Amino acid sequence: MWHQRQIRLRPQPRGFHLVTREVEEAVPELRELQIGLAHVHILHTSASLTLNENASPDVRRDFESWFDHAVPEGAPFWAHTDEGPDDMPAHIKASLLGPSLTLPVRAGRFALGTWQGIYLCEHRDHGGARSLLVTLHGEA
Amino acid sequence: MWHQRQIRLRPQPRGFHLVTREVEEAVPELRELQIGLAHVHILHTSASLTLNENASPDVRRDFESWFDHAVPEGAPFWAHTDEGPDDMPAHIKASLLGPSLTLPVRAGRFALGTWQGIYLCEHRDHGGARSLLVTLHGEA
Amino acid sequence: MWHQRQIRLRPQPRGFHLVTREVEEAVPELRELQIGLAHVHILHTSASLTLNENASPDVRRDFESWFDHAVPEGAPFWAHTDEGPDDMPAHIKASLLGPSLTLPVRAGRFALGTWQGIYLCEHRDHGGARSLLVTLHGEA
Repeated sequence: MWHQRQIRLRPQPRGFHLVTREVEEAVPELRELQIGLAHVHILHTSASLTLNENASPDVRRDFESWFDHAVPEGAPFWAHTDEGPDDMPAHIKASLLGPSLTLPVRAGRFALGTWQGIYLCEHRDHGGARSLLVTLHGEA
Repeated sequence: MWHQRQIRLRPQPRGFHLVTREVEEAVPELRELQIGLAHVHILHTSASLTLNENASPDVRRDFESWFDHAVPEGAPFWAHTDEGPDDMPAHIKASLLGPSLTLPVRAGRFALGTWQGIYLCEHRDHGGARSLLVTLHGEA
Repeated sequence: MWHQRQIRLRPQPRGFHLVTREVEEAVPELRELQIGLAHVHILHTSASLTLNENASPDVRRDFESWFDHAVPEGAPFWAHTDEGPDDMPAHIKASLLGPSLTLPVRAGRFALGTWQGIYLCEHRDHGGARSLLVTLHGEA
């Protein structure tokens, strides 16, 4: 059983945002799968997805701090600067975290660890609404 | 053909550990698949999985050195410090390396390159035994 | 429907290279799939794959600049140096970006965002021709 559905997330400010429930509710076909995999793919090159701690907002703020520190705007080695100082660091951050998550599915839900949640990682100052292409596959 | 099985790895000290055989032996259903994919997912946010060089232990030690250098404990920008100095860096490292591997399967085995092995990346000082959820899918 | 095919990319100099078309043309079975997933796996530990901006060559040059800056050759903490100064940084870079991409498939093509292209990330000075194992799965 295959399902594929494009969804649009609410626009978010630059930073790391917990979107587990927003994604889960956007793909109601998930509930039909007993065992399977969900592939969640972001259709952009300056935002990304990761799994991390779903409790403390401080963790998400520290993600922003570390990524801004490690991939600084205004570094002397950037050549691609014509789309703004936040653009090239956004591309690097997007590839460090990756464009997609493959999640195990069990009993109609994402089978994540207790503390795991899906982060939308918005690396641009004004990224707008981001689109995901979700592919579900499994047995009912 | 779908199989899903939760396994528990032996506890490891902080660092990078080769666990290819331990994972392969924990999912005997792998041997039934002629072509397929194995999704290996860690159910934690402060440990991760990667593929890298399966020969020299120096490579795994250098992984630890680089990650400790790039994501330092005690950096002035950490806000989430109440679970110990190793906690917040562990979350960042976990997302840099990622929570899951999807591995090609051929003739009943992981179809990896000659030098590729699965690393358990233990980012906490005392992480304990880590759980994986392995999802196998393919044709017999 | 499952297809698995090993392909060999043209050798590339150290750096980041757009190979979307080269991969797509090497797996003609892709055209048979209406909905599915393509798993593209590199069989090496010193080269990697990522998705990023498919237009400006400056973006790919800036990837090389940032990765060389973040994972420097000759750092005092490297122990594994006997395969040359580019070897150990190549292993770290390969794990930061990852050994595989899972791509959504729709209507016989990779269903990527407008600006997304597949990068071969060649982290060695003389990496030679790199091999990929591509696994396609979906419904016709």
